[in-house]
Amino acid sequence: MSDAVRVAYQGEPGAFSQTAAGRLVGDDARMIPFRSFEEMFESVGRGEADCCVAPIENTLAGSIHRNYDLLLASELSIVGEMNLRIVHNLIATPGTAFTDVRRVYSHPVALAQCGRFLRQHPQMEAVPVHDTAGAVRLIMERREQGEAAIASEPAAKLYGGAILATAIEDDPQNYTRFFLLAPPQSSIRPSPEPESGRWKTSLLLQIANKPGSLYRALGVFALAEIDLSKIESRPIVGKPWEYAFYIDIIGDVAEESVAKALEQVRAAADSATVLGSYPTSW
Amino acid sequence: MSDAVRVAYQGEPGAFSQTAAGRLVGDDARMIPFRSFEEMFESVGRGEADCCVAPIENTLAGSIHRNYDLLLASELSIVGEMNLRIVHNLIATPGTAFTDVRRVYSHPVALAQCGRFLRQHPQMEAVPVHDTAGAVRLIMERREQGEAAIASEPAAKLYGGAILATAIEDDPQNYTRFFLLAPPQSSIRPSPEPESGRWKTSLLLQIANKPGSLYRALGVFALAEIDLSKIESRPIVGKPWEYAFYIDIIGDVAEESVAKALEQVRAAADSATVLGSYPTSW
Repeated sequence: MSDAVRVAYQGEPGAFSQTAAGRLVGDDARMIPFRSFEEMFESVGRGEADCCVAPIENTLAGSIHRNYDLLLASELSIVGEMNLRIVHNLIATPGTAFTDVRRVYSHPVALAQCGRFLRQHPQMEAVPVHDTAGAVRLIMERREQGEAAIASEPAAKLYGGAILATAIEDDPQNYTRFFLLAPPQSSIRPSPEPESGRWKTSLLLQIANKPGSLYRALGVFALAEIDLSKIESRPIVGKPWEYAFYIDIIGDVAEESVAKALEQVRAAADSATVLGSYPTSW
Repeated sequence: MSDAVRVAYQGEPGAFSQTAAGRLVGDDARMIPFRSFEEMFESVGRGEADCCVAPIENTLAGSIHRNYDLLLASELSIVGEMNLRIVHNLIATPGTAFTDVRRVYSHPVALAQCGRFLRQHPQMEAVPVHDTAGAVRLIMERREQGEAAIASEPAAKLYGGAILATAIEDDPQNYTRFFLLAPPQSSIRPSPEPESGRWKTSLLLQIANKPGSLYRALGVFALAEIDLSKIESRPIVGKPWEYAFYIDIIGDVAEESVAKALEQVRAAADSATVLGSYPTSW
């Protein structure tokens, strides 16, 4: 047990991040919850955890730039990724009937994502709390009649709640992409490793905005027949008309063709930072 | 009064969206609050409002894809945009001393954005609620000792709260970009119109993922010396390896060079949808 991987995540036990962590490093890892992403990153920096798992984008809510910023400010690299389908469930104490539910606790983002369900059941009052898994813990501790929570199936299991309705979210195309982050010298890898055999490399490019500057940088990848799986501009605050670009390419920096393309991109851009190369299930 | 513009927004009176609406169409517009973005879009579709104001991206939290989806599903066009600096304030009933504050109500996203402030003042318990402006209304109605809210200055003014501390957010580079959306035949325009004289056009491109396909589409803009101010890929759910791209270019579709470039892009991409052309302050 003493050599179990210590993985930090944000949220309460049962949070979606913990599910993602289990898929990335195995459920026998030692999971360490943190209240904030800042504290989570700091714990790895101080060596109190071996790695951490950070949500980085969601199909409905977009890229979580704040976590990109924390990654850039840290010494960590991306060593793995996974996409988690976000399924929301109505959870209550065992024995509670669906028709008895009068108050539903959850994080406001989860409540909003179940807006149609809640409008269809106007007898259920939505009550915001900090955390989806924390909402399950709360109703299981209180054991008040007619109370329920909206959270994941692992949260229901962890706290002994009964699932009264599943997949109650408005939009089933709700996926969150998580990064597994570790110090560059670390040997932490996703376990099991994705079977695709494909690797991704995530980059941050900074480019002065002259018309066509991005076009020239992308030309390097196009000529090398390197595929892009993500591109996203982000204005650089305080520098109007300069941009940072988050770019994911298919390939490993250890491959010569990728390394050579990166060298050429560095010449075309003001800067190019490799955030990590990692196996992908895509 | 009867011909005042009716503008729909999401949130309670005093919400950041209402401030954005005031800047976009003037404070004499008739502001109509909605609980959800769905209901807000529907109200314009049914003609109960002339236009609506939707947050579309935030410098920390990224693009709000859900609102892009609602825009695409609607018949509305983008007719204006604005960037609002998000400043969080600690607000209490007049007469409350800073050192007396024990409970702080706000939306969990706002509470998270003020994480450092709250950690520095551990005597203040953070309590999540649905809405920042609603938190101010709540504490002003309750008038319990030691209670405060985190919200905007307009929310403090609207409900008569006193600002005990201002700009308490961790990261001052917190801006939200709002779109002004109206039916295509509408005459609604930002008022006052931005002085830059510059226009933007927002596009959605769909491109099959062959290496270099995005490169070829961007080549059209590069050759026409049309500047990009945003590019963001979004995987098309259910179609692995096909992408949608949100692209903002500088220029008005009414300009011949822009219209011609769009024609060429349409030939290179699977589809290109114009979401709107609108004056910008950039």
